[in-house]
Order: sequence, then structure tokens, then C-alpha cells
Amino acid sequence: MIDYNAQALNVNALYLSVPDAVQLILAKGVKHCIAAITDNLREDFMRWGDFDKSARVANHSRDGVIELMPISDERLYSFKYVNGHPSNTKLGLSTVMAFGVLSHVDTGTPLLLSELTLTTAMRTAATSVFAAQLLARPDSRVMALIGNGAQSEFQALAFHYVMGIEELRLYDIDPAATAKLMRNLAGTSLRLVKCSSAADAARGADIITTLTAAKTQATIITPDMVAPGVHINGVGGDCPGKTELHADVLHLGPVFVEYAPQSRVEGDVQQMPADFPVTELWQVLSGMAVGRTSDEQVTVFDSVGFALEDYSALRFMREQAIALGIGEPLPLIPALADPKDLFSVLGTAAPSSVAANQNRAAREDHHA
Amino acid sequence: MIDYNAQALNVNALYLSVPDAVQLILAKGVKHCIAAITDNLREDFMRWGDFDKSARVANHSRDGVIELMPISDERLYSFKYVNGHPSNTKLGLSTVMAFGVLSHVDTGTPLLLSELTLTTAMRTAATSVFAAQLLARPDSRVMALIGNGAQSEFQALAFHYVMGIEELRLYDIDPAATAKLMRNLAGTSLRLVKCSSAADAARGADIITTLTAAKTQATIITPDMVAPGVHINGVGGDCPGKTELHADVLHLGPVFVEYAPQSRVEGDVQQMPADFPVTELWQVLSGMAVGRTSDEQVTVFDSVGFALEDYSALRFMREQAIALGIGEPLPLIPALADPKDLFSVLGTAAPSSVAANQNRAAREDHHA
Repeated sequence: MIDYNAQALNVNALYLSVPDAVQLILAKGVKHCIAAITDNLREDFMRWGDFDKSARVANHSRDGVIELMPISDERLYSFKYVNGHPSNTKLGLSTVMAFGVLSHVDTGTPLLLSELTLTTAMRTAATSVFAAQLLARPDSRVMALIGNGAQSEFQALAFHYVMGIEELRLYDIDPAATAKLMRNLAGTSLRLVKCSSAADAARGADIITTLTAAKTQATIITPDMVAPGVHINGVGGDCPGKTELHADVLHLGPVFVEYAPQSRVEGDVQQMPADFPVTELWQVLSGMAVGRTSDEQVTVFDSVGFALEDYSALRFMREQAIALGIGEPLPLIPALADPKDLFSVLGTAAPSSVAANQNRAAREDHHA
Repeated sequence: MIDYNAQALNVNALYLSVPDAVQLILAKGVKHCIAAITDNLREDFMRWGDFDKSARVANHSRDGVIELMPISDERLYSFKYVNGHPSNTKLGLSTVMAFGVLSHVDTGTPLLLSELTLTTAMRTAATSVFAAQLLARPDSRVMALIGNGAQSEFQALAFHYVMGIEELRLYDIDPAATAKLMRNLAGTSLRLVKCSSAADAARGADIITTLTAAKTQATIITPDMVAPGVHINGVGGDCPGKTELHADVLHLGPVFVEYAPQSRVEGDVQQMPADFPVTELWQVLSGMAVGRTSDEQVTVFDSVGFALEDYSALRFMREQAIALGIGEPLPLIPALADPKDLFSVLGTAAPSSVAANQNRAAREDHHA
């Protein structure tokens, strides 16, 4: 465990760029990263009560949403910036782009600024397997993976490595996306089965993962596709007006969420009345609520992504980056000899040089 | 006006470090920067209705607060990260540290990541003069400046350059802070008068600026200190439980705020009932409400700092940085040939190299 207090006087956050994160992930391996983030999630969800939680703050626009996701305990604060713009892919841009910060609560000093696009893909997959370990049948071996976009390989690998999934039944409305996934995962021992529809993919699956991006009330899964005993890992419905599960699917079995106040607005449960029963994952983890009670039961994890998951992922990235010597200090905050003398940052000869420059700027203004 | 759409495909945000911001400010001059940000504020507050506004999200801890301040219109999104930890100065750290981001609303792509500690000092001063131009007597020449910490020189210069303030009456419970301010502003034509108390500083002032940092219900200004015609620029009371003005001061004249839903929680008006009348600055600017109605009236600007001010400052910093060629691209977001193929960032030989590293990591795990 890192002594975060030792960093209090360092105002230069560690910066992890995309190439830095790639270096880190390749050095440790995707398997290790996802497993370690899953361990962090378990550790952090176990102390749910320690966190100052709030639903994320979303600014919606015609084509998407930009969100901020803050959370803190008594030692660390984190937030993530993340967008969701399904039509971005037509422009050659990612649907989801993210970065985030980990800070020292006692002083507010940023400790880490990290890319979080790759890391979000890992932490979302880690959250899905964390939930599946609590809710799916332990003998699950076949998973439908519906939606084969940017995050799909990470879900596939997480379920393969952590849950023992051996066969993936793949479907995407864009066949090129499925082809890309099959190409990317050809080197693994996963059996990859290309399916002709969502219903075809769901056939024989122990776990159904939905990971689609359309910002609409989509109906990817209907009750007839869900066999007894299936665990549904619903990842793509994560925004008001953006759902994947037919409302009746939410009546097939108990529904589990990360943080109810946020999920009721953003998750597939947004389709249900405010008193629709949901159970938070931490309640199952801590034994305060039951998860799956029989092999025939259908369970639904209505995932939207919660700030605590980024907190767990950011502390993994920071610890690994420090251990591996990856990243560089970022002068984002002034380092001051006298903290009350911010003005001195403008130069030791501040008054005269500032004045001189002001005069010059003023002259330029007159000539403009 | 920059064509922000031209940047849509560039996923590398422009990064402005503290040294970059210093270079920019020295190149343009503090006077020009504050005046230009004031112009931006006027422009942006005039189209108040265009913005998706919310009160900032605050995570409070024993010693301080960390806040996120998002806002957007139909083209641009911005947020600021800012802390407030009054006891930081004892540790050699700044009370307020900040950075922020400007993004493209249509795609969510970050356009600018900038230091905002220096910039916040400038934009807070710009907001104060923007309000004073609407509310103070135009013939104001003497200003009390109570609290001579990190932001004080910026307030002093803003009021000197933009409002024509000629004399500053200075007071701080820490005499070293006042000495520092006097040293920093010795090269200007401001008359600097060191005072023995807040009441002494307020004597003869046309404008009273309070800029203290203690996170308590402080009573810096009482009604007896406020002469007829004074404009109060209350900057330091900006957090629940952190006020500077005696409640009775808020009855001396009309009270103006930036964004009422936030100010009622954070401003000095937190001391008043929910129906206490306040007027938002944009209402005065647009002519929907009156500001000062006589030379004898007392006016109060209960400033807390609102996200729109950072939006205005960030667009100034971005335009100037681009014009001056300051800053560098930051690889915070993956640049992908195929946006659905995030996994490819892990290398063109991803499956095998990832697998190889996974195997190596797995072996290491076994040995650990």
C-alpha cells in the first residue's frame, strides 16, 4: 500500500498518457490488469460506506453526453471525465473517450492524471466479472456477446480469464465489428461463434452480455431469448433514453445495480417505476442481501458504470505506474515558495516585467 | 472566432502547463488578460439562457473541499477541478489549486487541458470588476482589500486597470501577506495603505473587497463598517459554513449573485432564508433587473465563482495559446484508425504480444 501522505508536498501529478497506459498494460498483461482491478473493486465495494458518493453529472447534447464522475473517501478523491457519442464512429472518433484524476483529500493536490479510455474498458469488464462472480452460475462456460465494439474484447477476455468462459456467441449489427473482434481474439483459446442475430447469440448462453452503443430505447433482449439460469450482464444501457433490455426482461429475476440513485436514471431500470426493487452489488458482496438463489433463476446486472470503479482502476494504474517507473510529472499546479504569493509565479521581477508587458500589450491594443 | 469544428478530428487536447500560462500572461500582460476575460464574461453572461448550468459538485472533507464545475452551450463544454483547503498554506501548499478542460460538445473530444490556478485568480478578479462595473459607483477610487493572500494582487490590478481604483486600503490577519502584496505591487501607480484592522481598511472606501480564506462563519464585515454608497465585493465566502459578511450586511442593500441555486448554498446568502431576494448578474446585464439606483445605496456582490466564468477564461486561454503558439498536444485520448478497434492500441500484434505478456505476468503471479 502506498503512503499517499508522503506525496502531499509534490504538486506535480503523475501523468499517464495513452502510450504510457499501453506500456503499463503490456508490461503487466491484460489478464493481470483486469484481475487486479477486480480485486480492487472487491476491496473498495466492501467499504461502500466509507465513500462520499453522488450520481454523475451529465451534460446532454443532441448527439451525446459528457459526464463527470467524482467520488472520495477520507484519503483519496477521484473523478473521471467521460463522453458517450454513439455517432462519433462515423467521424472516425471513439464513442467513449475518458481521462481521470486521483487526488489527495487532505490537501486537494492531484496525484495522478491518467488516460481512462483504455482503463475504462478494463474497469468496465472487471466490474462485469466482479458482478458475475456474485450472480452468475459458477459453471457458466458460454457467453453471448451482443455489441462487438470498442469494449468488447475486454469483456471477452475478462470473462475468459476470470470466469472461465470458453465460448463466445457474437453478434453486432455491424458485421465488420464482429470480424474485428474475431481477428483480435484469434490468438486466445476462446471459441468464437459468429451468430446471425441477438436471439441466435443468446441461444445456449449461460451469460448474455449486451454492449451496444445506440442512444435510443433499443430492445436488444426480449424475454423469449432468456433461458432459465441465465445471467444478464447489461452494459450498454447507461444513459437516460438509452436502454437495451425489454422492460419484461427486468421481471425475469432479481435486478442488481451499482448505485441505485444513478441507475434509476441511467440504467435499464429507468423503464421501471421508482419503487421497482433493485439490489446494490455491495449488499450482496457484504452478505446483507442475497444474490442468485438457484441454478434456474435469471439474474440481471444492470450496469451503468459508477465512479467507485474508476477510483479502483485509478489506484491500480497509479500503483503500477510508480512500481514500473512509467509516466512523468505534469506541471499543472504552480509550485510556490510562499503559497500566498501566487503572483510571484509571473516572475521574480514580476511587477516591472508584468508592467512592461502590460504596457507593451496596451500599446499593441492601441495599434490593433 | 476560432472554428472549433475544425478541431473535431484532433483527439490530442492542447495542454497548457503552469509555465505555458505564465508565458502567455507575460506575453499579453495581466492588464490585457483581465480586460479580455472581462469582455468574454460580458459576452457569455449576455447569452445566459444558452448554457446548461448546474451548481458545482463538492466533495467535502475535514480540511477542505474538492469541486467540479461543469457547464456547456451547444458548441463547447468546460469543467474546472478546484480545491479549497485553507490550512494548506501551513504545509507550503496553495489554498486553491485548479485545472480545467474545454471540450467539443458535438463529439466530447477534449480541446484544451489547462492549468487554472493562475487563470482562476485572473477570472475571479475579472468577474469582480465585471460585477463592479454593473453595481459600484463609477467614480469609485478607493478600495478596501481585506485578505491579502494568493488572489489579492489580481483583484488589486483588475480594479486598478478596469475600474480606475487609485488607492488600496489593505488588511490581513497575517501582516506578512500584506507586506508581500505591497512588495508585488510596488511597481504600479496604486497608492497602498496598510491598515490596522478590517474596520480601518473599510474607512473611506468606495468598494470593500473581502478575500479571506478561513473555512468558518467569519464576520469580517459588520454593518457599522459600511458607509452609504459602498459596493461590497465579497469573494471569500464561497462554501457551506464559510462566510465573511455579518448577516445584517446583507440587509443594507440589494444582493447580487452569479447563479442563485449555487450561491444560496455556498455564498454569504447561505445565512438567509431560501426566499431572501437576490438578483443574478445576467439579469442586470441584460436590463431585466436594476442594479444600483442611487449614489447612496449599498450594493453587495456575493461572489462564489461559477462555472461560466471558467468557460469564459478557458476560451480566452485557448484562443491566445493558439495565436501565440504556446502549449503542446497531449496524448490523453487514443487516436484510432478504426474507432471500434480500441483493442488495437495494445499493438498491431496485440493478441500474441498481449498473450505473451499475460503468460509472463501469469508466471510472475505464480512466483509471487
